[in-house]
Amino acid sequence: MLCFLMMLKTVLAAWMRLKYPHIAIGALASSAPILQFEDIVPTETFYNIVSNDFRRESSSCFNTIKASWDALVTEGQKDNGLVQLTKTFRLCRELKKIDDLSDWLDSAYSYLAMVNYPYPAEFVMPLPGHPIKEVCRKIDDCPDGTSTLERVFEGVSIFYNYTGQAECFELEDTSAVGTDGWNWQACTEMVMPMSSRDASMFPTYDFNLSSFEEECLKNYNVKPRPTWITTEYGGHDIKATLKAFGSNIIFSNGLLDPWSGGSVLQNVSETIVALVAEEGAHHLDLRFSTKDDPKWLIEQRETEIKLIEGWIEKFYQERKADFGM
Amino acid sequence: MLCFLMMLKTVLAAWMRLKYPHIAIGALASSAPILQFEDIVPTETFYNIVSNDFRRESSSCFNTIKASWDALVTEGQKDNGLVQLTKTFRLCRELKKIDDLSDWLDSAYSYLAMVNYPYPAEFVMPLPGHPIKEVCRKIDDCPDGTSTLERVFEGVSIFYNYTGQAECFELEDTSAVGTDGWNWQACTEMVMPMSSRDASMFPTYDFNLSSFEEECLKNYNVKPRPTWITTEYGGHDIKATLKAFGSNIIFSNGLLDPWSGGSVLQNVSETIVALVAEEGAHHLDLRFSTKDDPKWLIEQRETEIKLIEGWIEKFYQERKADFGM
Repeated sequence: MLCFLMMLKTVLAAWMRLKYPHIAIGALASSAPILQFEDIVPTETFYNIVSNDFRRESSSCFNTIKASWDALVTEGQKDNGLVQLTKTFRLCRELKKIDDLSDWLDSAYSYLAMVNYPYPAEFVMPLPGHPIKEVCRKIDDCPDGTSTLERVFEGVSIFYNYTGQAECFELEDTSAVGTDGWNWQACTEMVMPMSSRDASMFPTYDFNLSSFEEECLKNYNVKPRPTWITTEYGGHDIKATLKAFGSNIIFSNGLLDPWSGGSVLQNVSETIVALVAEEGAHHLDLRFSTKDDPKWLIEQRETEIKLIEGWIEKFYQERKADFGM
Repeated sequence: MLCFLMMLKTVLAAWMRLKYPHIAIGALASSAPILQFEDIVPTETFYNIVSNDFRRESSSCFNTIKASWDALVTEGQKDNGLVQLTKTFRLCRELKKIDDLSDWLDSAYSYLAMVNYPYPAEFVMPLPGHPIKEVCRKIDDCPDGTSTLERVFEGVSIFYNYTGQAECFELEDTSAVGTDGWNWQACTEMVMPMSSRDASMFPTYDFNLSSFEEECLKNYNVKPRPTWITTEYGGHDIKATLKAFGSNIIFSNGLLDPWSGGSVLQNVSETIVALVAEEGAHHLDLRFSTKDDPKWLIEQRETEIKLIEGWIEKFYQERKADFGM
């Protein structure tokens, strides 16, 4: 989806600078998880960050979501359980299997973590500022006696129906961008293994390359190449590679963004620098400035502009020196 | 052919180091014409060097060859001219068009310039040491009254028949390696424009991209991409690119080698160095050492080994520093 595509683009910016330094003077790699391949970072990083984004707002919210997956299964296995779930979650079509609903919820939480901006925005969906805070308020503020699943539905309604205009919900992605492009990428070169462990609020899941391969063969008739990226750009030694052979890259990250876990969060060299914002989300620095921008964001953008101006200045100086202009 | 393939490999060595510095610690790019693209070097460079290799041995030899192309045309246009040429050049099959014979001669001179080694060798063909000197001796030492074409035939016999075992000559390349692989490369990414001007001993010829494209479409159904290499690795700015972003490359060249004209002949930086041997030919430093190696060649190889040892040492030092080993 959009976030995957945006993320892919900034990853490409960093790689472009690494491979084509004669064409790209530098790269602003905002929220670019260039380490999210093979086992360079722990595979559970992404879902742990999503989970922490919820826990920091409210531990009861975190616990409700964590409990909801079992509740879903229990409910779904009852007689007429799927019909009941269809009603609880106001689905447009009758639910066929529980996984479809789990994926829909998982997707909402993951996107919420990415777009957890400090002001109202419409990047993926129209959302209020600090949307996770709002989701958790909804979940926590339900009257006593509200079931786990009803609470969760109230919560994700912030994501799927903030405008209040949805009559019912389609579980399939119906956005204009679509997921096919990204899914094909993920099935070929952009294999980003992700797991979920006990510490997260998601169901436990271990990335399994063989079953991933099967899915890819089934859906796209392609076989993933999980080591291609790490061969092409460097794997566990990518930071040493960047340090020795790269320059002019800004890795900017917000720690609320689940992609930050696979990004470069420390300066690599004098010209490959990390800008880390504790309260930042996905690509926040690349968004248009607004009157609600926090001070740290304004300062971060100023730093980025200064660095980029420095690259351009140096480029013209060296050009002058090389060509005696 | 073999020379093209060898040349391609050392060009690839330099590019490999430029694009995959985390995989290749360094590159010995012997006789690697990385500048032989678009108009980075004058397109007539290659044939000028071949011609100079003959002129330095004997200007009458140079003049005989230069005169032979017109003589060929004159002879070929006579009644029974092609039959006569078939006899003069002891061809196995009757000559169909003059161009086939010109190409065969052109090919001999070009290869002779590449493999103009100071000792007997069998790189492309079994040849004596200093083969161009031998060719020119044959051409020059014919008795008075020998025709230009007969002289030229005596000359190229050194190349095509040094063992004296050929009963007749096939104009088509019959070597095991074959030219198809290279020709396809030349028709896709490795477009190396070559012309021949008045200063050379070859017929005047201007590289023409449109007719080259036509040939490629006809022969391989592909369209050449003459700017792909220069986009991928850098074009006119390739030296600035190497200086700023590359390291650990030795460009070694012999000035007798016609490919040296498209190579890097001056140091680019402290770690991208040029080793130039006035009397060297194609890949001479990469050949096994022999008891006939001249002193400069022995020294050149020692320099190369020292540089490579330096790269390896530095690599392990940095590894130690990076991983605290």
